[in-house]
Amino acid sequence: MTENVRAYAAVSATSPLGPYAIQRRSTRQDDVEIEIFYCGVCHSDLHTARNDWGWTSYPIVPGHEMIGRVVSVGAKVTRFKIGDAVGVGCMVDACGHCAPCEQGHEQHCVEGATFTYGGVDRIDGTPTHGGYSEKIVVKQDFVVRVPDNLDLSAAAPLLCAGITTWSPLKNAKVGPGSKVAVVGLGGLGHMAIKLAKALGAEVTLFTRSAGKEADARRLGAHKVVLSTDERQMAAVAGSFDLIVDTVPYAHDLNPYIPTLAFKGTLVLVGYLGPLEPALNSVPMVLGGKAVAGSLIGGIPATQELLDFCGQHGIVSDVEVISMHDINAAYERMLKSDVKYRFVIDMASLKNEA
Amino acid sequence: MTENVRAYAAVSATSPLGPYAIQRRSTRQDDVEIEIFYCGVCHSDLHTARNDWGWTSYPIVPGHEMIGRVVSVGAKVTRFKIGDAVGVGCMVDACGHCAPCEQGHEQHCVEGATFTYGGVDRIDGTPTHGGYSEKIVVKQDFVVRVPDNLDLSAAAPLLCAGITTWSPLKNAKVGPGSKVAVVGLGGLGHMAIKLAKALGAEVTLFTRSAGKEADARRLGAHKVVLSTDERQMAAVAGSFDLIVDTVPYAHDLNPYIPTLAFKGTLVLVGYLGPLEPALNSVPMVLGGKAVAGSLIGGIPATQELLDFCGQHGIVSDVEVISMHDINAAYERMLKSDVKYRFVIDMASLKNEA
Repeated sequence: MTENVRAYAAVSATSPLGPYAIQRRSTRQDDVEIEIFYCGVCHSDLHTARNDWGWTSYPIVPGHEMIGRVVSVGAKVTRFKIGDAVGVGCMVDACGHCAPCEQGHEQHCVEGATFTYGGVDRIDGTPTHGGYSEKIVVKQDFVVRVPDNLDLSAAAPLLCAGITTWSPLKNAKVGPGSKVAVVGLGGLGHMAIKLAKALGAEVTLFTRSAGKEADARRLGAHKVVLSTDERQMAAVAGSFDLIVDTVPYAHDLNPYIPTLAFKGTLVLVGYLGPLEPALNSVPMVLGGKAVAGSLIGGIPATQELLDFCGQHGIVSDVEVISMHDINAAYERMLKSDVKYRFVIDMASLKNEA
Repeated sequence: MTENVRAYAAVSATSPLGPYAIQRRSTRQDDVEIEIFYCGVCHSDLHTARNDWGWTSYPIVPGHEMIGRVVSVGAKVTRFKIGDAVGVGCMVDACGHCAPCEQGHEQHCVEGATFTYGGVDRIDGTPTHGGYSEKIVVKQDFVVRVPDNLDLSAAAPLLCAGITTWSPLKNAKVGPGSKVAVVGLGGLGHMAIKLAKALGAEVTLFTRSAGKEADARRLGAHKVVLSTDERQMAAVAGSFDLIVDTVPYAHDLNPYIPTLAFKGTLVLVGYLGPLEPALNSVPMVLGGKAVAGSLIGGIPATQELLDFCGQHGIVSDVEVISMHDINAAYERMLKSDVKYRFVIDMASLKNEA
């Protein structure tokens, strides 16, 4: 038994997103049915809608930064009750028994995690559809609790932009005394600054445009370094325990490596593709430095992040839009014209039909 | 007051090494004078003699894998006495008070460590000369003790090839249950296998030539994987906590990244230069994997390695040569025609003049 719900989908790589009816399953015993209030707009949504990575099946309903309230629960649901404020991020299932799953790193499930959109349900084989829709039905183990004090619209991006930057910070054990730099001031970058600051680190923003300084400082950065200025870059040589690189397109990493301290790591969270121009191993070997990748984060870490944000009153800086503005929002994202995350008000979808 | 000693030097990038007289300082209060019995031959010796990295000053006396006996000590030397079997590796001094020095990572001294050859003495400004010579005078803090049970000729390569591979193993906390792979079976690679095995890891050798299997197993490898065989590579996907990549020339890292486990790291210890073909970030980000560099190791780690090798009876597989064979040995090294390290018997230098 299924339920028809309103959604927005892309039906091909070249068509704009538009209204599309999808079916959500009725709750299984361990499922939670969620009315979606807000859904953040991630660069991955756009890349997937347009098949930039070559793995999209159409139609595709993007969206993996959802916040809403529980409207019904399956018979064996113990962790949630009707009315709870909850979130769903990039994953809705995984095998649950491999080593990464047992360690709470479901995104690295050996059998492959089931992603929130563009995935295949592990039980009935139907395609998964994301948060650009009125409702979603998700296994309770992949649902997280949203602290009461957070604004629900501004908390939505924590489910992807938040956890994506939280993971490298926690993995590097960032805390008081840590020196963290962030490359790129967008949806991910502005969260990285807020989270690193709240963890007690000294935070530096690397940017190519001097105009971002005031905003970076308001978000919590202690220093702003113009990455195009060799003198400024030389002044921070050997400084950083961690660089969180949020830039989503190809860019030269070589200027940043010498700014890492011994045993420091530059963690790529935004860019998928060949590292060109070629990364030079000389400063990596001579300086004992590393370049790593990091993918979102597991469910326990996502809950930890939301709890941390509740304690510290941290949310994203968002611009709330209506569902029918999504195509214009994508164009603005491509020009980095958003401070710092679009969030769709799903009430606007209800009003459409 | 100085002493003239016999040595072998290169006087230009294109000239073969030949006999050359150098001066060694008389011992300062904290110096140890060492009669050199054996000196290993490292790829860095060859690269430096031929100015492959562009930073050589001539004349240059290579050699940074020395083992010998103490023949005199300065007034304030407390750690060594005449007759002790000792080793000297890649460094002979550092500032001693920066954070890396205080943590025992003198190779990352903020002021720059003083390297054993091609460096500049921190007190009198004279050029440092390496182990292709009869004697050397070194500050006691940069001299390590050699366990009694080790063959002195075969222990010499521990001072560079050994510590270079020991550092990434220890940094990754390799022990029983760890899965370690080694790329390249040469001076560094054969030590990486022996050390990882002795630490309790399951050890795999990646090689391009099937002929190396028997030797790799004899050295301690549990598995040998032909890196040119896609099926064999796919069979070890997601396997390794650590890959120690000892290859000293440009090579494609991309086939190895997917064989790392989640949070696994490929550590470059042999190659200095641009990573070409371009490293692709996709498996690094999607798999949470890293590429790092590592440079030799500090003095405390070098002593720890020698003590470990004493306990486990580990030395290099060496081919002992005479000093006048060095130019032929360099040519053979370029063809990987050595199992697995040349070591110069310095008695041969005495007989020359």
